[in-house]
Amino acid sequence: MEKTYTDALPLTLHSEKQEIVCVFGTGDFGRSLGFKLLQCGYSVVFGSRNPQMSSLLPSGAEVLSYSEAAQKSDIIILAIHREHFDFLSELIDILNGKILVDVSNNLKINQYPESNAEYLAQLVPGAHVIKAFNTISAWALQSGSLDASRQVLVCGNNSKAKQNIMDLVRALGLTPLDQGSLVAASDIENYPLQLFPMWRFPFYLSAVLCIFFLFYCVIREVIYPYVYQKEDNTFRLAISIPNRVFPITALILLALVYLPGVIAAMLQLYQGTKYHRFPGWLDHWMLCRKQLGLVALGFAFLHVIYTLVIPIRYYVRWRLRNLTIAQAIDKKDNPFSTSSAWLSDSYVSLGILGFFLFVVLGITSLPSVSNMVNWREFRFVQSKLGYLTLILCTAHTLVYGGKKFLSPLILRWYLPSAYILALIIPCTVLVIKFILIMPCIDKTLMQIRQGWERNPRNSKSTLHGKSDI
Amino acid sequence: MEKTYTDALPLTLHSEKQEIVCVFGTGDFGRSLGFKLLQCGYSVVFGSRNPQMSSLLPSGAEVLSYSEAAQKSDIIILAIHREHFDFLSELIDILNGKILVDVSNNLKINQYPESNAEYLAQLVPGAHVIKAFNTISAWALQSGSLDASRQVLVCGNNSKAKQNIMDLVRALGLTPLDQGSLVAASDIENYPLQLFPMWRFPFYLSAVLCIFFLFYCVIREVIYPYVYQKEDNTFRLAISIPNRVFPITALILLALVYLPGVIAAMLQLYQGTKYHRFPGWLDHWMLCRKQLGLVALGFAFLHVIYTLVIPIRYYVRWRLRNLTIAQAIDKKDNPFSTSSAWLSDSYVSLGILGFFLFVVLGITSLPSVSNMVNWREFRFVQSKLGYLTLILCTAHTLVYGGKKFLSPLILRWYLPSAYILALIIPCTVLVIKFILIMPCIDKTLMQIRQGWERNPRNSKSTLHGKSDI
Amino acid sequence: MEKTYTDALPLTLHSEKQEIVCVFGTGDFGRSLGFKLLQCGYSVVFGSRNPQMSSLLPSGAEVLSYSEAAQKSDIIILAIHREHFDFLSELIDILNGKILVDVSNNLKINQYPESNAEYLAQLVPGAHVIKAFNTISAWALQSGSLDASRQVLVCGNNSKAKQNIMDLVRALGLTPLDQGSLVAASDIENYPLQLFPMWRFPFYLSAVLCIFFLFYCVIREVIYPYVYQKEDNTFRLAISIPNRVFPITALILLALVYLPGVIAAMLQLYQGTKYHRFPGWLDHWMLCRKQLGLVALGFAFLHVIYTLVIPIRYYVRWRLRNLTIAQAIDKKDNPFSTSSAWLSDSYVSLGILGFFLFVVLGITSLPSVSNMVNWREFRFVQSKLGYLTLILCTAHTLVYGGKKFLSPLILRWYLPSAYILALIIPCTVLVIKFILIMPCIDKTLMQIRQGWERNPRNSKSTLHGKSDI
Repeated sequence: MEKTYTDALPLTLHSEKQEIVCVFGTGDFGRSLGFKLLQCGYSVVFGSRNPQMSSLLPSGAEVLSYSEAAQKSDIIILAIHREHFDFLSELIDILNGKILVDVSNNLKINQYPESNAEYLAQLVPGAHVIKAFNTISAWALQSGSLDASRQVLVCGNNSKAKQNIMDLVRALGLTPLDQGSLVAASDIENYPLQLFPMWRFPFYLSAVLCIFFLFYCVIREVIYPYVYQKEDNTFRLAISIPNRVFPITALILLALVYLPGVIAAMLQLYQGTKYHRFPGWLDHWMLCRKQLGLVALGFAFLHVIYTLVIPIRYYVRWRLRNLTIAQAIDKKDNPFSTSSAWLSDSYVSLGILGFFLFVVLGITSLPSVSNMVNWREFRFVQSKLGYLTLILCTAHTLVYGGKKFLSPLILRWYLPSAYILALIIPCTVLVIKFILIMPCIDKTLMQIRQGWERNPRNSKSTLHGKSDI
Repeated sequence: MEKTYTDALPLTLHSEKQEIVCVFGTGDFGRSLGFKLLQCGYSVVFGSRNPQMSSLLPSGAEVLSYSEAAQKSDIIILAIHREHFDFLSELIDILNGKILVDVSNNLKINQYPESNAEYLAQLVPGAHVIKAFNTISAWALQSGSLDASRQVLVCGNNSKAKQNIMDLVRALGLTPLDQGSLVAASDIENYPLQLFPMWRFPFYLSAVLCIFFLFYCVIREVIYPYVYQKEDNTFRLAISIPNRVFPITALILLALVYLPGVIAAMLQLYQGTKYHRFPGWLDHWMLCRKQLGLVALGFAFLHVIYTLVIPIRYYVRWRLRNLTIAQAIDKKDNPFSTSSAWLSDSYVSLGILGFFLFVVLGITSLPSVSNMVNWREFRFVQSKLGYLTLILCTAHTLVYGGKKFLSPLILRWYLPSAYILALIIPCTVLVIKFILIMPCIDKTLMQIRQGWERNPRNSKSTLHGKSDI
Repeated sequence: MEKTYTDALPLTLHSEKQEIVCVFGTGDFGRSLGFKLLQCGYSVVFGSRNPQMSSLLPSGAEVLSYSEAAQKSDIIILAIHREHFDFLSELIDILNGKILVDVSNNLKINQYPESNAEYLAQLVPGAHVIKAFNTISAWALQSGSLDASRQVLVCGNNSKAKQNIMDLVRALGLTPLDQGSLVAASDIENYPLQLFPMWRFPFYLSAVLCIFFLFYCVIREVIYPYVYQKEDNTFRLAISIPNRVFPITALILLALVYLPGVIAAMLQLYQGTKYHRFPGWLDHWMLCRKQLGLVALGFAFLHVIYTLVIPIRYYVRWRLRNLTIAQAIDKKDNPFSTSSAWLSDSYVSLGILGFFLFVVLGITSLPSVSNMVNWREFRFVQSKLGYLTLILCTAHTLVYGGKKFLSPLILRWYLPSAYILALIIPCTVLVIKFILIMPCIDKTLMQIRQGWERNPRNSKSTLHGKSDI
């Protein structure tokens, strides 16, 4: 009945602060939570198997048997591993109508078929099970550290019970986030076990690219001159070679952000429908485009600083000075070449503008900024500005090559300059994209993306009118 | 009656997941939403005019007539354009007490006098109308993309119905944001149609400034030397001239951030009250100060990189080398000038400090950071630090001019250097601000801003005491 | 009774917009709020001591006596200082069951033993007291400025009354944030009075460090050469000396971010338990580590730009040119030193990588980013990446010293180079950390952090099993 139920739950949690909260389990997290609760003005009762034997508990807390402790409070926090939930079946009557907060975590993602909280709700069907606090560490609770995330993800089927626990969370100085009903519990339990799941593919991919181009450049620029000219170029490993590897990696990663989009468009054109699912690898690739782009931005940032640092390097100063001295001694003429000035300046300028747009893209992908823009604005920035960035960065690399682009002198052991390899993917993406935005193809693609199908499963599809969204 | 009403709505939405959701309309968005709902474990019933003829629907979904479909579920999602809402008037009895979710968008901002959702609420007064999902694209729903904003703005007059829909939104992996009652619907409907409304004025203004100063510098630095000295200086278009245009635009925009503030203060002083509304243009100007400042920061950032890149430019290296060689050949003396060192270093140093504070201002204006600071801290940063930035950047430009500031040699075709034009607005703002913070004027202004009026509408105003806030 | 209570509160606030809101107090904030309410379509009734004498009120608002005004509305906003709350005791009957919104602020943090809102709730026990709007300024309300934080912190014991006020806040275009029950009021009242409380210690500390090293460098690099060689090196004050002081401050501050962590670990090892509280200074230090790190990042950023600017300085160009000319005239040989190239390049490269990681750490500490990562990811970034940053930056400084590190020639007036002083704290932190992560010590520390104690208060602690979290 509605009314009885309402009476069973405290209406205003903090009306008088000496409310009692019961904590089952005297492990580290239970004790830390109890300590924090005491600090914030609550009375704490611990429930334990051997109440006489429990030590180390925060002073001021009472320790009772499970059943005695449960009777003292409407809120019971269960700081016990899932494997030991069984004893609760003996307490079903006492726990009836009470709020049971499950704080447990597992060791692996999706360790059990159902979440711990749902399992608990089946064990004690009369209690209002709430999942909370599992994303907070005991250490953070105790040290009161503000550094770590203070967000407590909360879910549960009973909204009043959930509200009470969210008030309790707030009273402890933490921020509750309502995650809906108890089906969200499995996500909440998996959450603290993840370590950057979306960043793995970009990270390994960039590591592979870096290592490949590192060896490539070492062969061309350290080993080759050593073999043929007995020059010791190892000092290039510190700046020159990273400053070749990083921009190449950045450009390839940036192109790989836009490659899945054009592959998806080609697939849709080929299949003539958007209602086929993409293959799994393409789906995963599309989901980590943001991370790919941010890793690319990191490498671009490194490239910018490595480049700006050039004039203060010992090697560069030494070479420039020697050139000048040689010229001064020979009294040779050094005519000004406008085309060289144009090449040098436009190459640098394209790079700067590309980097600038790249930084703007990066800032826009910050969660708080991307939450402020709507879908239309987000598409404008990430698609229009994104392609502009790719075009500028590719042009920067092309102009860098300049006159010597396909000169055979550049080959060493038949290996072309590394930047020529770097241009393959970006140019491919840009060419395909250019074809895709030609009016005839773009129109078909738009229709497909608005739900049109080339070979609909039955021919009546044209009948359902324009009234539906 | 309260109780009947409560029974009509499902209390715990997800207690068993095979809940039925009804979707009216089999267009692209309806199908995408149905697909997503099926994926997340819901049963989906489509309502259609011609149920036999509807094709392309996700497998597993049932298609019925509108009235049959509506009877199957408590939640009816209306994926139909506003123009075709009329048929709902026949279903008034069936829809009574049900949750009707309007996902429709219009083509223009404020296309109709009332929002679609409010219009729907008038059409079907017995239903609980909720506005939701209109900010999400069908494409995002289907591809499960995390890139785009996952926020679903929700509003509605009935809080339980709203809660149910927010739970539904969460179950689809999206983030619901409660926007209050149905009056918020018109804002929610306008939201996805906007394309950076606050950025337009700053964007066009900076474009105009850039183009004006671009032509100004081209005349002075490319055409003038070509006419008189037959020099080909076109290569300056790539770096030298942008690096003159960008800092000028940045400085003027930064000054324009603070100009409306001093204009408003002068208006208040002149009118002797703060209860006069400002003219519309001033209001609009004040509202886009943040965007003006961020565009200015963008130009300042470009200026910094264009400047740092100077020593690696071909032209600069060529000129430096030639100067050195000429001196070496002539064996001329090159005495060290402490005053030049002071001018050069302090000019650079002021610029760096100004840019640093500018970046700090920019970071503080990130939504997540500005949400963390209170009004007092925000004012401190944006006003105190902001003026300090303006002072440093203006001083940077003044010292840049240095000795040659008003030398007549700098005139070309009677045009002064561009940076002298750039100083007009910043210096004006700083001078007025300096006058405004003089004690006597500042005190009057403070009084006015605390509600005092020079010519109150009736003379008893002094009577209402200090008790009110 | 539940039912009467529900009837007393308006269920749907905005069903018809001409709802009446009563504002007590006709001061600046009261008038501004009334003005805004009228703008948003509400009817406003002001309550005043002398209704005939109140002037300056927004047109369209009615002014009545307190009791008459209170009877007109269910929501009464109290724009009156706490010192003048007394008159409310006469209105207890009229205010019964109404929503009383307290907007008051105090002049000092924790000025009164209980918060204004709680005091109000004691004065008028029959009303539903809600704290709101105190974080918003009258100026922001009136000018409709979007610049300032639009967040309205709301708390109150009655959830329906709170919901109504949150709807009202949303209708005014502001963002309500539920802060729980009325115990949160004292925090909400202190909030707008704070001025960067966590930033003070880092700010003063860095100021002290800067000033000390500024004098230190001035003595060594300006006064010393002036005394012994009569050189005027004052121009070094603009760039050279800041570029020595800033990196030193950055490195020391970065080390001080990690010092409290190793002190805490040593304390825990010494005490053999984690359940002793740390001394107050250590607690405070640990809480402002994030701010310390961000200040350090600011100095590192300045150091980077000051360094990149080196080649465009007049002094540097003059010196390089003179060196070249002298060599050209003497036709001296200038052999290439691979070890110098290695030292110079690796020193620069270490600095760039350290700065890059530092920037990544800074971005991760943005509120919106740190809210997206879980505890495990946060620890990975801030601890692993943080120490890597410290190692790279320390190595950068060590290699900078290079060959001349402990050469006696570097002493001036027995003062070593400033960077040698800068290395003391970072090296100490790294050495202690290195000892702490040695397996035997690390294992003990882990046990202590999981709740184990060397000297438990009673010996039975081993009995409570592994079942508890």
